[in-house]
Amino acid sequence: MSVPVNSRKCFEDFDEGYVFESRVAGLTETEITRFAAMYDPQCFHLDHDEAAKTHFGGLVASGFQTQLHCFRPFCEQVLRATWAVGAPGIDSLKWLRPWFPGEALDIKVTLARKRPSSSRKDRGYLSLEMRAEANGAPVLAMDWMVIVLTREGVKKFQEN
Amino acid sequence: MSVPVNSRKCFEDFDEGYVFESRVAGLTETEITRFAAMYDPQCFHLDHDEAAKTHFGGLVASGFQTQLHCFRPFCEQVLRATWAVGAPGIDSLKWLRPWFPGEALDIKVTLARKRPSSSRKDRGYLSLEMRAEANGAPVLAMDWMVIVLTREGVKKFQEN
Repeated sequence: MSVPVNSRKCFEDFDEGYVFESRVAGLTETEITRFAAMYDPQCFHLDHDEAAKTHFGGLVASGFQTQLHCFRPFCEQVLRATWAVGAPGIDSLKWLRPWFPGEALDIKVTLARKRPSSSRKDRGYLSLEMRAEANGAPVLAMDWMVIVLTREGVKKFQEN
Repeated sequence: MSVPVNSRKCFEDFDEGYVFESRVAGLTETEITRFAAMYDPQCFHLDHDEAAKTHFGGLVASGFQTQLHCFRPFCEQVLRATWAVGAPGIDSLKWLRPWFPGEALDIKVTLARKRPSSSRKDRGYLSLEMRAEANGAPVLAMDWMVIVLTREGVKKFQEN
């Protein structure tokens, strides 16, 4: 693990309104078609010529690939440095327009709300809103929740 | 494209209540850690020994990897044989319990509702509910929507 456990953030260290920003490099056509062949083999993600005939007018990244590339910087730079212990799910994900090859994405993740667990003192929930834009146009919006240990939860974990 | 365009299904060919079922092979620890290193580098997806110390008790697949492996068979066997033209988003995704190495998943996708577009005669919306279980225990639930061309939409596409 790259972040020493003693410097990791716990639930109390986050404030509502916290913002994380990053920029994601554009994908090549090969990166798009390779991912599609593995996970989402629809013609507009998979084949340059077939995609050109569709309403997209060309190859576009799988929405799942877009989701992953938007998530990764936040995971690498924030979650890995946090006592995060999983996620119950995604409340909403919107693909607002396709992600075309070569377009960089501007990502913003906002901590919209935090609340302690009502049943367990060792954890709390962070409600996060991720927004991605390409050239100023919204591409993806994802609202989801992450479970993070409280100070008490970290202490309990370290005693075990 | 593996499915000839003339045998592909359009919006009118689907009935509410349609069910697609499949079984997904369990992942190896290496498949889990490779995916995590690329997209979701948290210790419980990435490192056998670190994961053993967490509340998961061992390595578990990234929720995004679970999502992709659940989606793929439906994409390969149904969407590719359909005049699907994209998806507006995911209404809800729940990770109900972790996906552990070696566990096969039983997948069921149900067409819960269909409705024609209110503004465009060339397309309609399929509301799909995907449920995945490992050894009878719910692992993932995803509700999402797919846009599919109507007969009129296919005709227009083929004339262009």
